Amino acid sequence: MNAVAYHLEPSRGAAGLTIAAQPMPEPGPHQVVIRVRAAALNRRDLMLLDGSYPLPAMPGVVPLSDGVGTVIAVGHSVTRAVVGDRVTATYFPRWIDGPQRRSHVVEQYGATRHGMLATYAVLEEDSVVHVPEHLTDAEAATLTCAGVVAWAALTTPLPVLPGESVLTVGSGAVALFGVQHAKILGAEVISITSDLGKAERLSELGADAVIDRSRTPDWERAVLDHTDGHGVEHVLEAVGMATLGQSVHSAAYNARITVVGAMPAPGVPTGNPFGTSYLSIRKIAVGSRADFEAMNRSIAEHRVRPVIDRIFPFDRAERAYHHLRTGDPFGKVVIEVS
Amino acid sequence: MNAVAYHLEPSRGAAGLTIAAQPMPEPGPHQVVIRVRAAALNRRDLMLLDGSYPLPAMPGVVPLSDGVGTVIAVGHSVTRAVVGDRVTATYFPRWIDGPQRRSHVVEQYGATRHGMLATYAVLEEDSVVHVPEHLTDAEAATLTCAGVVAWAALTTPLPVLPGESVLTVGSGAVALFGVQHAKILGAEVISITSDLGKAERLSELGADAVIDRSRTPDWERAVLDHTDGHGVEHVLEAVGMATLGQSVHSAAYNARITVVGAMPAPGVPTGNPFGTSYLSIRKIAVGSRADFEAMNRSIAEHRVRPVIDRIFPFDRAERAYHHLRTGDPFGKVVIEVS
Amino acid sequence: MNAVAYHLEPSRGAAGLTIAAQPMPEPGPHQVVIRVRAAALNRRDLMLLDGSYPLPAMPGVVPLSDGVGTVIAVGHSVTRAVVGDRVTATYFPRWIDGPQRRSHVVEQYGATRHGMLATYAVLEEDSVVHVPEHLTDAEAATLTCAGVVAWAALTTPLPVLPGESVLTVGSGAVALFGVQHAKILGAEVISITSDLGKAERLSELGADAVIDRSRTPDWERAVLDHTDGHGVEHVLEAVGMATLGQSVHSAAYNARITVVGAMPAPGVPTGNPFGTSYLSIRKIAVGSRADFEAMNRSIAEHRVRPVIDRIFPFDRAERAYHHLRTGDPFGKVVIEVS
Amino acid sequence: MNAVAYHLEPSRGAAGLTIAAQPMPEPGPHQVVIRVRAAALNRRDLMLLDGSYPLPAMPGVVPLSDGVGTVIAVGHSVTRAVVGDRVTATYFPRWIDGPQRRSHVVEQYGATRHGMLATYAVLEEDSVVHVPEHLTDAEAATLTCAGVVAWAALTTPLPVLPGESVLTVGSGAVALFGVQHAKILGAEVISITSDLGKAERLSELGADAVIDRSRTPDWERAVLDHTDGHGVEHVLEAVGMATLGQSVHSAAYNARITVVGAMPAPGVPTGNPFGTSYLSIRKIAVGSRADFEAMNRSIAEHRVRPVIDRIFPFDRAERAYHHLRTGDPFGKVVIEVS
Repeated sequence: MNAVAYHLEPSRGAAGLTIAAQPMPEPGPHQVVIRVRAAALNRRDLMLLDGSYPLPAMPGVVPLSDGVGTVIAVGHSVTRAVVGDRVTATYFPRWIDGPQRRSHVVEQYGATRHGMLATYAVLEEDSVVHVPEHLTDAEAATLTCAGVVAWAALTTPLPVLPGESVLTVGSGAVALFGVQHAKILGAEVISITSDLGKAERLSELGADAVIDRSRTPDWERAVLDHTDGHGVEHVLEAVGMATLGQSVHSAAYNARITVVGAMPAPGVPTGNPFGTSYLSIRKIAVGSRADFEAMNRSIAEHRVRPVIDRIFPFDRAERAYHHLRTGDPFGKVVIEVS
Repeated sequence: MNAVAYHLEPSRGAAGLTIAAQPMPEPGPHQVVIRVRAAALNRRDLMLLDGSYPLPAMPGVVPLSDGVGTVIAVGHSVTRAVVGDRVTATYFPRWIDGPQRRSHVVEQYGATRHGMLATYAVLEEDSVVHVPEHLTDAEAATLTCAGVVAWAALTTPLPVLPGESVLTVGSGAVALFGVQHAKILGAEVISITSDLGKAERLSELGADAVIDRSRTPDWERAVLDHTDGHGVEHVLEAVGMATLGQSVHSAAYNARITVVGAMPAPGVPTGNPFGTSYLSIRKIAVGSRADFEAMNRSIAEHRVRPVIDRIFPFDRAERAYHHLRTGDPFGKVVIEVS
Repeated sequence: MNAVAYHLEPSRGAAGLTIAAQPMPEPGPHQVVIRVRAAALNRRDLMLLDGSYPLPAMPGVVPLSDGVGTVIAVGHSVTRAVVGDRVTATYFPRWIDGPQRRSHVVEQYGATRHGMLATYAVLEEDSVVHVPEHLTDAEAATLTCAGVVAWAALTTPLPVLPGESVLTVGSGAVALFGVQHAKILGAEVISITSDLGKAERLSELGADAVIDRSRTPDWERAVLDHTDGHGVEHVLEAVGMATLGQSVHSAAYNARITVVGAMPAPGVPTGNPFGTSYLSIRKIAVGSRADFEAMNRSIAEHRVRPVIDRIFPFDRAERAYHHLRTGDPFGKVVIEVS
Repeated sequence: MNAVAYHLEPSRGAAGLTIAAQPMPEPGPHQVVIRVRAAALNRRDLMLLDGSYPLPAMPGVVPLSDGVGTVIAVGHSVTRAVVGDRVTATYFPRWIDGPQRRSHVVEQYGATRHGMLATYAVLEEDSVVHVPEHLTDAEAATLTCAGVVAWAALTTPLPVLPGESVLTVGSGAVALFGVQHAKILGAEVISITSDLGKAERLSELGADAVIDRSRTPDWERAVLDHTDGHGVEHVLEAVGMATLGQSVHSAAYNARITVVGAMPAPGVPTGNPFGTSYLSIRKIAVGSRADFEAMNRSIAEHRVRPVIDRIFPFDRAERAYHHLRTGDPFGKVVIEVS
């Protein structure tokens, strides 16, 4: 197969996505080249197309942060991978471990560095992450963004303890990973979703209770009822500011609410998020390579299978984008590359 | 001197405060009786008078959480104090150590248990805290609420490190303790205040930079300038929701913002507190006995002197309340009891 | 049934245990009285009999820290339990939450306060802990010491993460709880035991690998092999100093080794525990009430069943002691009280 | 000046050190070249000479991890430094942040990568650290190893709090930095040293109490006396295993003892380090780049001046080694390079 890559011109919507032949890439020092097998979409990829993502895309960038492939060449001084390894990459190539710093977020695959929607990709050695063996390529391609942010929300700065309660708000990919991780952490999981069909599938995924917000608009009361009035100790708020108030009302004294996801939020902070509650609210972005590797050990040990909604062929990438935007998927939207 | 105590009838404002003879109290098991020497006011005491405090006052309760005295009698099984000790009490008598639980906050001196505005007070043994020797009685009476909450804001879950930056917003007693604690922790301190006179006194107290918000309404820009555009790592937000948006704009990537103080907040959480920032915001209430004791070791080692604005005699307590409400004090308002 | 209690005269071995009628106890303020249903033995109870426990027993003390019963009377001011509740007590009645302090350890049921080997027991309200509903009385009686210390070893200061590796050394009750807790935390568990029969039962309990040290005296090599040379991230060292050197050799870079159990250790620290390893070794004693309650939520959520070796009737308590000392039990030795 | 570098042949002692012309180095991608201004010795450098360091030196390696210089060239893709910056490097070039991993320790300047005892040095971009402006080149050269390990010992996983007590054991460079850092953290500092002259200088450096172990061989009792029998909360054990037993006896309940320094320890762990104490003992190696940068902010804010014992000229490097080995220096031994 010839080397081919998609390229993105920002702020032009779907029309900004074009495909072109790709010169066969060579790895520099501390870099590896992978033959991409599968890639996956995140909401941020729609925002990059639209120009609404906080970090502007480099014109012509190869899109997508999420993908998996086989190492076919390694550059000088590389020690973290060898030819033949099946690997993915971190969302922020410079964030190795410890807390996130501002300097980490300005570099991202699929935004300021070429990403995964190509037959070949060049990865910084430091960003390389090996993937659990039991996963298919399509499954392994889904972990980078949604998998890791859900993990970081539930395990940092302190992991959820067995027996504690976790509320997931939303039924996008982050929330689904949240349900899976939270069950493995031993938590009792309550999920808020917006329709009955998703409710059933969230239950199958492990949620102990699912509340359909279309039928129970004041779902915070249902959460309080379910927890004998105490509220939940942890909230994975994967919808965003629109539901934060209800999440606060659902939360226990001293709860930890984690807001995730790249939201096209107005830039100006406003309002009182707490009401009369005493708790903490934080907004996080993905996780470090160390978080990714820790998550992979959990996924491998417990043979977790990420939820995939639909897989598109490489030459139909624009349909994958369209499906994520309008198809209300349950699970990840994946593109098979080779 | 005869035993005398003030009593509070909630929701009647200043008229709710009356004075009456007090039967000489006897300590039960695990209790001590102190001869009160001095007591101090907090904003919550105005709210208790007004009926706007979240926890309603017990009718007839002896007000004030903050006070210091000498142990004159100990009950059965008491091991944490002996007659003659100079002690104060924690704000939440049941919160010994570890994170705050909802069950801790429903018991408070001066609200649901008799407090310090009396010649004698009965204290639960578990709430007793010895005070640093170098402090006067008036100074020692000021620590319980404002001193401890500023300490907890700056030292939990992780202490501010030497060289980190701390922003204090407000110039009430919590902010003043915040400046003092932050300097001892080795931080660089920036303080926001509302007038020039207070600005000078904040500098004398140790603040490295003071911004007068009456002259610099967009003080968040000044904070960013002062920190080379990075923002501060820690905010002690002691004004409340009115300035939270500006505090968020002043804050560094991944900063920790701690909102303190009992604010007569509307009960309904609203709005997006983050804008586009990634950081954490928490709301805390005072601290545990362990926090109090840790703070006292710092105060003793560094011979910190709390700032007192004015001391009123015991028979003029209503004037002390009035001064806190209308006098715009710089430092604590204290009542000398005996 | 009449009130009856065992009493212990220290340093007299089995002969120090006598039974006598017990005056029906009355609860003081902040105390409850329980009708004891079952009690359980720990190695410390043998040491108290022998006089080798660091904290000398009060002459005539009612022995045993572990027990469960029904509240039949509550004293003045009690809010944490009502008549009819099925409860147990913490090992250290004063350790509520947060880190352990020296002042916590000087008070212990069954040593300096009357314990559970009686038809009725008086408990400090602060020490009362409700037990998971699905447990039998005998099972619920086993949690206080061995259950909690294994939990604290694996969850403080940071919980073991899913996918991490845990080594349990020993096959006493602490190690068995360790295997159960570690599996619920999602860990991979390797257990060291001293005979083949126990090895099988450890596997049934969930251990992923069991090494019989009678056949594999250099078991640290087997642990390294099993972990691809990396070593384990966590060690629950429940044998003590005799195996600490091998535990260190089994451990990964930066591992956390927790030594538990009241060992009749020589008082003088000696030797180099690290060899060339970089890691941390700590010695802990049981856990706080908050740890106990957190563990109970995990036990309830996952319907954990503690392992009981044998149950003795109340009038055969000395045989229970004898069985723990000489019977090499697998699981807890319980005494049914009523 | 021509490019010149020392080279080390391991296991030959002082004779293993030779000087030779150095080809002018070129920076690769993500590398910088510095004109070295000053370098400093650590005990590990003697061990590398002797062949007793755990990580064998690469034959011919340019020695020394500690040094400071001016960036004169930057390679492709470098963003963390520009020409003209005054910088140093981390001890472990791959350890950026978070906990130490085994993979970090196998790469070290002056052991497996060329180090600082040369007129020019090539540094990995990720290892570059800017130094506080107020320091001389000689002072800035001393931070990498001894400064950072003392900082990490006192600030991880939780910083020492103001008013807590810190014991430093030893009077090498690590202990001296320990005294300086601990005072800035607000601690009360007790130092153990081996002669009267050093005792005076430790007092001048800020130690609140100094115990001369030549006169007080049972110094653990003196520490207990000084702390009213409680013992110290933190020990920076910079001598090693020889004094660990006494450090344990000096320590408070639940204390944190940190053993630092590359000791030519026997490889076999032995003995009971705890006696009857409940506390934690860890062995650490230097710190991460994040630790280094955090320390530098403290050093800059408080204008700390590292203690230098003596400065040798570049062409007398072997005399610097000799002085460190036999001269019983108080403070760092520095080599002025240019």
